[in-house]
Amino acid sequence: MIDIISLSANQLVEKLKSGDISCVDACKAYIERINKFEKDVKAWSFFDKKLLLEKAKEKDEYRKSGKPVGPLHGLPIGVKDIIGTQDMPTECGTKLRKGMSESSDAEVINLLKVAGAIVMGKTVTTELAYFDPGKTTNPHDKTRTPGGSSSGSAAAVAAHMAPLSIGTQTKGSVIRPASYCGVVGYKPSFGLISRNGILKQSSKLDQVGIFGKNVEDVALLAKSLIKKDLYDKDTVHYSADNMLEECRKKLLFDPKFIFYKTSNWKNIDKDSQKAFEFLIKKLKKNIEVFDEPSYFKDIHKHHQVMHETDMANSFKKYYKNSKNKLGKKLVEAIERGLKYSANQYTEAKDFMEQSYRSYSEVFEDYYGVITPASTGVADKGLKSTGSPEFCTVWTYMGLPTISLPLLTGENNLPLGVQLVGDKLDDLRFLSTANWLEKNCKDDE
Amino acid sequence: MIDIISLSANQLVEKLKSGDISCVDACKAYIERINKFEKDVKAWSFFDKKLLLEKAKEKDEYRKSGKPVGPLHGLPIGVKDIIGTQDMPTECGTKLRKGMSESSDAEVINLLKVAGAIVMGKTVTTELAYFDPGKTTNPHDKTRTPGGSSSGSAAAVAAHMAPLSIGTQTKGSVIRPASYCGVVGYKPSFGLISRNGILKQSSKLDQVGIFGKNVEDVALLAKSLIKKDLYDKDTVHYSADNMLEECRKKLLFDPKFIFYKTSNWKNIDKDSQKAFEFLIKKLKKNIEVFDEPSYFKDIHKHHQVMHETDMANSFKKYYKNSKNKLGKKLVEAIERGLKYSANQYTEAKDFMEQSYRSYSEVFEDYYGVITPASTGVADKGLKSTGSPEFCTVWTYMGLPTISLPLLTGENNLPLGVQLVGDKLDDLRFLSTANWLEKNCKDDE
Repeated sequence: MIDIISLSANQLVEKLKSGDISCVDACKAYIERINKFEKDVKAWSFFDKKLLLEKAKEKDEYRKSGKPVGPLHGLPIGVKDIIGTQDMPTECGTKLRKGMSESSDAEVINLLKVAGAIVMGKTVTTELAYFDPGKTTNPHDKTRTPGGSSSGSAAAVAAHMAPLSIGTQTKGSVIRPASYCGVVGYKPSFGLISRNGILKQSSKLDQVGIFGKNVEDVALLAKSLIKKDLYDKDTVHYSADNMLEECRKKLLFDPKFIFYKTSNWKNIDKDSQKAFEFLIKKLKKNIEVFDEPSYFKDIHKHHQVMHETDMANSFKKYYKNSKNKLGKKLVEAIERGLKYSANQYTEAKDFMEQSYRSYSEVFEDYYGVITPASTGVADKGLKSTGSPEFCTVWTYMGLPTISLPLLTGENNLPLGVQLVGDKLDDLRFLSTANWLEKNCKDDE
Repeated sequence: MIDIISLSANQLVEKLKSGDISCVDACKAYIERINKFEKDVKAWSFFDKKLLLEKAKEKDEYRKSGKPVGPLHGLPIGVKDIIGTQDMPTECGTKLRKGMSESSDAEVINLLKVAGAIVMGKTVTTELAYFDPGKTTNPHDKTRTPGGSSSGSAAAVAAHMAPLSIGTQTKGSVIRPASYCGVVGYKPSFGLISRNGILKQSSKLDQVGIFGKNVEDVALLAKSLIKKDLYDKDTVHYSADNMLEECRKKLLFDPKFIFYKTSNWKNIDKDSQKAFEFLIKKLKKNIEVFDEPSYFKDIHKHHQVMHETDMANSFKKYYKNSKNKLGKKLVEAIERGLKYSANQYTEAKDFMEQSYRSYSEVFEDYYGVITPASTGVADKGLKSTGSPEFCTVWTYMGLPTISLPLLTGENNLPLGVQLVGDKLDDLRFLSTANWLEKNCKDDE
């Protein structure tokens, strides 16, 4: 008998397509995991066993009819609960939307359906995808945070309750929970995946991301989600058809990386610092350690102005009508957002392009940039989701970034290595990430 | 002997291409007009007779060599002095840039050169293209304003000192001077013509426009300037190859227009009101008179927030270092721009899309919207450039708009009729404008 939940998403989908494993059996295996672990991990804001098995049955019947199956045929996928779904509630982590659903599916849900995937359920998000935590715990230690805001999406994959999941990142909401939960988290370049039908915080910062067990798995899912969407005018035409094949290709040259300890290195705990020093040593042929450019400090400031101003705008109805029902951190951010000047905002907007224009030179000489994905392993306690400070700069510039679970820190907890690539160079970027994963994982 | 300056640009360019008229002769005819009228009209901030004749001679030699000539071969064109030129100063109407030129040509200058046109000279702009006037007078009455900010471009064409010219509009800087000077002024849809190398006031509002004697002439020039430019990321791919042919095509149906008197109707002088009432009567089969949508009032407010904030950002060095050398109106606008909140700015930005989304329905039922182009004929005096209030809404939504010199008001002075079309529907729009021109002009 095949141990379904130990298969990679790529292995599983091949067997689902061939009929070696039925969708019903695959879903049953995941339901079993959920029955066992969900009471501790609390990754799901909506999960309906019966609905899932119905969908799985339909998929099996469809395959048996002999019609051509999609690239994600029958693959169950968890979806962050700020992504609009017609047949499940979309509560966005706030009691103000208790039980509410959307009148139409988000574009990524449409794309999942077109590719033949099954939307398994909705995964827990922090409140309105900001910093006030949901109920999810870290699968490696239930007294610790899973990170946020895509808490449930990361935890569900880490606890093998889903082979793949979708999240979003406006600052560090994919990379940080991936690091804490010990899974791969991939946030493609800004503009590749439509945000249409997803709760908006900030149109120039919000980006969709993917969680999986390895690089090839996130490439499999990303490939089906990358599409120009007329209703998200920031999306671009991009050919991702060969994403998986390119990701599997050997690199033409031995890659050269920059490693930034960043100005926040001092915020990293000692065990984690040691782990990164070990990585630098191990990759010494491939890594050069540099100080990060001085203007990165300005980016943190600009990101905050843009993010908080846009949130004040996006959430103004919630704030006006129900301020006392919103979390403290969110209310504080909105109130800061209402105070910035238009001048600060336009500077933040302009610096987005300027900073990328300056920074992009790096990728002429280097395959990518490596940094910690988080300030260390998952923080203790569930009242905070940890710090996104190692992600802010890359999200602001819209670069592709991935967290790989290559290291461990304190208490043997997972610790993510963040790789950053050049904008819209996601095919080569994933191939590089694959190299890094393969060259660091096994003998660590 | 042919009277060169009475030819349309289309007629002239055909004769230049065939060699029936040499470029040198064409330029000499315009130089003669300039010698005669420039002392009163003052349309040029830079004009060098010798340089122009040299360029004309080169064009003649090029044609004689038998090489294929461009679509604008040898056509002399006036260019607003905020458009960067390498071989002529670009002073932007401010003494702070006295004698300064740009290190490279603006993209529209490159496109003119590629099409075989000759940059004749630089035409007067108001200070930094805002409201503080330059030296230009109205060719129909030198005690009156030519309008602004593209004052010289409109006046040069009106005084037959150039067959065509280029200007820009951030609020009403093409349509208003065209109306006052009695020429055609065409501002294409936002995104069709690159602003790269042109003084920036506001990246979401600045738009390039064209002055000519008739609709087919502006179509001739627009066709060569419409091109996606990687350095102006707001430009779009657009096929304008058949712009002139489409413009000349007969309309398939008798067009239906909306006429708005707009909420500013009371600001129009009595003679001009009468002229518009006459137009409405004359076109009664084609025109329905409506009240403008109530949210147009909000647009004026949002436009101001965006425009002044962006100017405060674009001109911050001038303001910081040389505030006392800038005009009063500009300084006041910059100072208002420094005071808006980021929240007001993001609202203004978001309403841009929202308002167009609501408004675009109109074009399902109507060929276009007709309104006054200005509050009447050119105001007396040279201290103000008049009010752009009839243009603000259309510039904000990025719609194509054209002023046609179809009416006259007080003292028989010209009065423009503004036609507005749907965004990126410029081909059909120009064909409609051509219909309007032909059906209203002759028997008026």
